[in-house]
Amino acid sequence: MSRTLSLAVIPGDGIGPEVIAEAEKVLERALSASGVTLDTQRFSLGAGRYLETGDVLTDDDLEAIASKDAILLGAVGGAPGDPRLKDANIERGLLLKLRFSLDHYVNLRPTRVYPGVPSPLRDAGDVDFVVVREGTEGPYVGNGGSIRPGTEHEIANEVSVNTAYGVERVVRFAFEKAQARRQRVTLVHKTNVLVFAGSLWKRTVDAVAEEFPEVDVDYLHVDAATIFMVTDPARFDVIVTDNLFGDILTDLAGAISGGIGLAASGNINPTGRFPSMFEPVHGSAPDIAGQQKADPTAAILSVALMLDHFGLAAQATAVTDAVEADIAERTASPRTTTEIGDAIVARLTD
Amino acid sequence: MSRTLSLAVIPGDGIGPEVIAEAEKVLERALSASGVTLDTQRFSLGAGRYLETGDVLTDDDLEAIASKDAILLGAVGGAPGDPRLKDANIERGLLLKLRFSLDHYVNLRPTRVYPGVPSPLRDAGDVDFVVVREGTEGPYVGNGGSIRPGTEHEIANEVSVNTAYGVERVVRFAFEKAQARRQRVTLVHKTNVLVFAGSLWKRTVDAVAEEFPEVDVDYLHVDAATIFMVTDPARFDVIVTDNLFGDILTDLAGAISGGIGLAASGNINPTGRFPSMFEPVHGSAPDIAGQQKADPTAAILSVALMLDHFGLAAQATAVTDAVEADIAERTASPRTTTEIGDAIVARLTD
Ligand SMILES: CC(C)[C@H](C(=O)O)[C@@H](O)C(=O)O
Ligand SMILES: CC(C)[C@H](C(=O)O)[C@@H](O)C(=O)O
Repeated sequence: MSRTLSLAVIPGDGIGPEVIAEAEKVLERALSASGVTLDTQRFSLGAGRYLETGDVLTDDDLEAIASKDAILLGAVGGAPGDPRLKDANIERGLLLKLRFSLDHYVNLRPTRVYPGVPSPLRDAGDVDFVVVREGTEGPYVGNGGSIRPGTEHEIANEVSVNTAYGVERVVRFAFEKAQARRQRVTLVHKTNVLVFAGSLWKRTVDAVAEEFPEVDVDYLHVDAATIFMVTDPARFDVIVTDNLFGDILTDLAGAISGGIGLAASGNINPTGRFPSMFEPVHGSAPDIAGQQKADPTAAILSVALMLDHFGLAAQATAVTDAVEADIAERTASPRTTTEIGDAIVARLTD
Repeated sequence: MSRTLSLAVIPGDGIGPEVIAEAEKVLERALSASGVTLDTQRFSLGAGRYLETGDVLTDDDLEAIASKDAILLGAVGGAPGDPRLKDANIERGLLLKLRFSLDHYVNLRPTRVYPGVPSPLRDAGDVDFVVVREGTEGPYVGNGGSIRPGTEHEIANEVSVNTAYGVERVVRFAFEKAQARRQRVTLVHKTNVLVFAGSLWKRTVDAVAEEFPEVDVDYLHVDAATIFMVTDPARFDVIVTDNLFGDILTDLAGAISGGIGLAASGNINPTGRFPSMFEPVHGSAPDIAGQQKADPTAAILSVALMLDHFGLAAQATAVTDAVEADIAERTASPRTTTEIGDAIVARLTD
């Protein structure tokens, strides 16, 4: 039996192309004996493309990408403060547009403290959790506006939109994850202040929890969650939260686990109706671009998430095992982006 | 010349009364040779009062409190999950109602890593910053609602409201603080997603910055700010941010600086039109209430903020110096709440 996986690759800006090159090598190697053939199409998107053509994401691009099985994305965004990008907002026009158009309602972000990786925490403990961040609602919907802009009477509003439909499906995904892990779901929100959205989230978690009696449920206000993230991150198994709180918590999680050079993410549409998108959490870091200084590990771990998404559990585990073995043997002497990628590929036996 | 400072004391729930007792001792002692006489009125407010009478904050209470020069608050809130408090939301009805009614537009939260206090960070560095959190706008305004609640078609919205008037005054306060400190302001927001509110904040900071040419200005997305909070907190001097981001960042700041047992805060109306309110950042911790286990340091440092607010700089410094000296000599053997308060009082010479 042979299968073809059609893949949109968006290397993007800055260090994106470098880390994606390594991720693709790992993906090819991991699939080599699987019977799965890769059919890759490359898309030049991001600040570079915008500066060349003025396009952020054309309808044609979007349509072509939407027809694939999956997307692998490096990082997008130009140099901070580049005046030519002032009016562009590549993040909204590209990254968020893809997440919303392709209904990526699960933004999956695992965090582990790998043995051998120095955490900024004195005693991180045995950290292994995933954040299930909602990806299509909350304050990210773009329902903001301002009246009397530029005057002393300006009022700028931002609306966080939360629907029963949207919350229920992501909460259900979190419980399913927890069931396959250590059976613990922590809802993070700010129910004492955002009472309407908070109440919807809380009631939804309580309702879904009844279908998963073996899963423990816990609730933390987002402010308290950041405290536990630095004092006792090992307590978490699956965190489910909204789009903005998830954004904040996962960067913090990346930091405590030894840097967002290791943080992978999947923007997932679990129904399979649209292609899911896998990307490192880090940005395009234009200051070190093209210098072979970037760590491709987060991009490579994003490939593992992709393999897992397609049910290729053995291949996914092979990649994470190879990464873990590589990390365990890292020394103080720096390696190039390619050297790290090659070392991980070399650990993938057929 | 003699002055009278009329003070509303709200001990509150849980450990509130214990820590406030020590804070009051310190305040009296600090003022003893200052020519300032205290005129204290105590208000029984919080979960305890609500359970007894059904009142959260009556108009009479509010009026009496509003007529004072300042407010000292311990902590409010009952046991988490207490079914009798289910419909109360003491936080909104009391704490937020006071902040909004008394126009506490600056929520001032200093963070220092005191020598001798173990931080969860391996290497915190020389941390000394203040967060100037907006206190009367943002997602805290209570402009939320839900339609079709309880059905599968529920939509729950929360509106973040930001005004030029509200943003400008708090940003100006932050620049004034920075000018008297290390001349650095960091705006924290999420301008790439919350584009309207973000734009208002950014433009306001840029405009006010022109009046403070000696102050350096920096911008961080809130997610990136949490990373720096654990990797390089010493970089911060004054952080200015909105109500929700400030809530999150200050709990995280409390955690990295050795626990929110040390985190003080002032809810300030700089115009003096309404009394400002000083309170530890920590909650009521009902689980350890009445056991003399609570650390009163945050409440005592809140007194120092109050003294500073009234221009009593020498007295404020005396209190922080006494706290610092006490902290430096803390050993592993636990002291009671009263012992800590007494030790700090003993260091305050006339
Ligand atoms: C670039 C930005 C829009 C994005 C987000 O806020 O989601 C990023 O921070 C992330 O977490 O992927
Ligand atoms: C209790 C709660 C409403 C409050 C807030 O969110 O402001 C608290 O977390 C704080 O930071 O003082």
